[in-house]
Amino acid sequence: MGQDILFEFIGTAILILFGAGVCANVSLKKTLGNSAGWVVIAFGWGFAVFVGAFISAPFSGAHLNPAVTIGLAIVGSFKGSITGYIIAQMLGAILGACIVYLMYKPHFDAEENPNAKLGVFCTGPAIKNWFSNFFSEVVGTFVLVFGILYAAGAEIAGPLPVAILIVAIGMSLGGTTGYAINPARDLGPRIAHFILPIKGKRDSNWGYAWLPVVAPICGGSLAALLYIALAA
Amino acid sequence: MGQDILFEFIGTAILILFGAGVCANVSLKKTLGNSAGWVVIAFGWGFAVFVGAFISAPFSGAHLNPAVTIGLAIVGSFKGSITGYIIAQMLGAILGACIVYLMYKPHFDAEENPNAKLGVFCTGPAIKNWFSNFFSEVVGTFVLVFGILYAAGAEIAGPLPVAILIVAIGMSLGGTTGYAINPARDLGPRIAHFILPIKGKRDSNWGYAWLPVVAPICGGSLAALLYIALAA
Amino acid sequence: MGQDILFEFIGTAILILFGAGVCANVSLKKTLGNSAGWVVIAFGWGFAVFVGAFISAPFSGAHLNPAVTIGLAIVGSFKGSITGYIIAQMLGAILGACIVYLMYKPHFDAEENPNAKLGVFCTGPAIKNWFSNFFSEVVGTFVLVFGILYAAGAEIAGPLPVAILIVAIGMSLGGTTGYAINPARDLGPRIAHFILPIKGKRDSNWGYAWLPVVAPICGGSLAALLYIALAA
Amino acid sequence: MGQDILFEFIGTAILILFGAGVCANVSLKKTLGNSAGWVVIAFGWGFAVFVGAFISAPFSGAHLNPAVTIGLAIVGSFKGSITGYIIAQMLGAILGACIVYLMYKPHFDAEENPNAKLGVFCTGPAIKNWFSNFFSEVVGTFVLVFGILYAAGAEIAGPLPVAILIVAIGMSLGGTTGYAINPARDLGPRIAHFILPIKGKRDSNWGYAWLPVVAPICGGSLAALLYIALAA
Repeated sequence: MGQDILFEFIGTAILILFGAGVCANVSLKKTLGNSAGWVVIAFGWGFAVFVGAFISAPFSGAHLNPAVTIGLAIVGSFKGSITGYIIAQMLGAILGACIVYLMYKPHFDAEENPNAKLGVFCTGPAIKNWFSNFFSEVVGTFVLVFGILYAAGAEIAGPLPVAILIVAIGMSLGGTTGYAINPARDLGPRIAHFILPIKGKRDSNWGYAWLPVVAPICGGSLAALLYIALAA
Repeated sequence: MGQDILFEFIGTAILILFGAGVCANVSLKKTLGNSAGWVVIAFGWGFAVFVGAFISAPFSGAHLNPAVTIGLAIVGSFKGSITGYIIAQMLGAILGACIVYLMYKPHFDAEENPNAKLGVFCTGPAIKNWFSNFFSEVVGTFVLVFGILYAAGAEIAGPLPVAILIVAIGMSLGGTTGYAINPARDLGPRIAHFILPIKGKRDSNWGYAWLPVVAPICGGSLAALLYIALAA
Repeated sequence: MGQDILFEFIGTAILILFGAGVCANVSLKKTLGNSAGWVVIAFGWGFAVFVGAFISAPFSGAHLNPAVTIGLAIVGSFKGSITGYIIAQMLGAILGACIVYLMYKPHFDAEENPNAKLGVFCTGPAIKNWFSNFFSEVVGTFVLVFGILYAAGAEIAGPLPVAILIVAIGMSLGGTTGYAINPARDLGPRIAHFILPIKGKRDSNWGYAWLPVVAPICGGSLAALLYIALAA
Repeated sequence: MGQDILFEFIGTAILILFGAGVCANVSLKKTLGNSAGWVVIAFGWGFAVFVGAFISAPFSGAHLNPAVTIGLAIVGSFKGSITGYIIAQMLGAILGACIVYLMYKPHFDAEENPNAKLGVFCTGPAIKNWFSNFFSEVVGTFVLVFGILYAAGAEIAGPLPVAILIVAIGMSLGGTTGYAINPARDLGPRIAHFILPIKGKRDSNWGYAWLPVVAPICGGSLAALLYIALAA
């Protein structure tokens, strides 16, 4: 296995450790950050990307997201193994979610609401509406990948501009579906929720699970295609 | 059409996608960020500028604001088409607002308060007072354009200093009129509100619409004139 | 008059425009940012320093604070006119506070609590205790000036490290006296409060006014002396 | 005594001045930042590290944490006196906590809840569970030291990436035990709590005191070992 794939696994595990962690801290019972609000969710996920990315960037490029891997492959700036990256991202996301479960286990046990428990792992729509939900995830991932492709314009090296972009997506575009914008971020922890022996858990909402996989891939691919068209 | 005008269009569309987006997330019913507070509004708009600016900066200079375009033209550091830029900014703002409407449509439908719906698109005064409201927008845009003209003093390349400046304006100077400080940011989405078939919408408050167009242009021009005087 | 003194005036006016502005937005009646909380106060003042500093830094060094001017003079890194700088800082602070008053006048008129109106302009202790209040302002200004003297360690050029330092002081050390940590920031706006025809205003609390002038000068001087001792 | 040890003492005193300070401001009675929420705690501690680190970094490398000192010694990038550093960190932490007590004394006197007073100084579990609590502190310190070892990937010089990492740990992983992640941060102020004549104080919870010492050392050491394994 290449070092790039190994660090893609590590980086995504750290991303989800922090990302699912902030959801656990804000939503589970008796945590110190209980009800800390959307500002903590948005900065928490942005800084989760910052940490996961700065650790893995020199080794794997820090995609941490299949939609990013596919988008970069479409524009021709990723030459590695798409399959290897996506498997590593998925496994990393599952690992990160399992560590959060172990850390916050007493709070999962104390929490009565099964939707709050599921919400630590994966996203769901605030109002169910297939078109709007799908469109939300397409738009969120479109600006994520489009922003990554033009990140040089931020004139700040490293992952800080993308971390700020993630905070922005959370604050502005996350209010509808919880901004999965990353198939590994949603499906990986959902699998963890399915497997883990969480006390009083509900089903893993598999009926919705395809949307935060398919829509982000569409959004990221559209961003790549528009980037190619604009550069032509 | 020049690439500069095209990217001015894209950058302003992204600015308003994020900016109107954060207003929708914080104020519409049943969103995940409902009632997240002014801290999210202020950072949301600041990071909206950051993203819109870093994508468009290398191609158009990332004005994203007719008051900035006019201010830079007055001091002689913009040689492009003022008309082209302003039309692109207006159309971009309309597009961005329409995307937000599509994303948040179920939340617009669930919201009963027509003022909350209008507030996603455009600004209005907390207390109506022509002098104070006009003066607020003049001061806000004055410091915006004055800050842009002296941004080299921040010793950070790229749009980060201006993004922080936008957060600062929101936190400190935005409490009176909602800091339009940008004719395209206010008029473009207001036109979108007028056109879009929003369920249960109110009128688009055209009686106020001139103020967040004229006052920002005055404020930006005054900043440019003071800059010239100080450099003399 | 030298350009350095002029820009010290401009920079401090902008600092107080934003600083008093965020207090007005958070505390006055019917503002859009009403009750936005300490997070907005702390970031608002930090970014106020950022903006005031990046505009004035290349011309005046951006002290914006008599305690900083005196501290830098003690360590020998300021060779300009101390008197000129302090007068410019005071006048700038008065101007900034007057602009905030004009912008937020309808909200001053709507506000019934005279302490809230005074709080927009100047600081006061949460619990009156001469020793603790004095000590608080000494400690806050000590770390401010000490931090400025060692700011090269942040390895970020420009005013960003000092802006973060201001946010930190607000969050951690501001809970007792409201962190004046700057004689111009407190006395200038207090004079503005005294002069301005604010509807229903209380007295300007002159009995406390000496403390946020004397204590910051003590704190800044102590920081300078320790810096000299450590460098010996 | 070497200058490195002296600045490790100064840096840790400043870290705890700001860190215990933000806890006092958010939790003690009648403070201006009372109930400001987890967002202020998380940014407050992150910026506390930023300030303590930029002041001490050029002289001591700014460990400010025995777990960091031990981790860096394991990977071979610290050649100084481990004992000297740890003693300096402990004494600095005690000093910082004593200054916070003096600053906030009227608020300690006004506060009736002895747990709130203890919480200014040291951490405790939200839900007592030896395994989960220990695991939480191991994971938090693991990512802290792991992140420090890979911080070059952030491509930002100086302490900003680590400060953001601290904010992230607080937001995401701090909800269970209050993220000591630093033996000096917890034990030093706990000793201060034990010694200081705080009105109406409870015992210093010595039964828990070993955990935020031992678990961070384990977490930091594991990070160092994994780093070595990955570099092999």
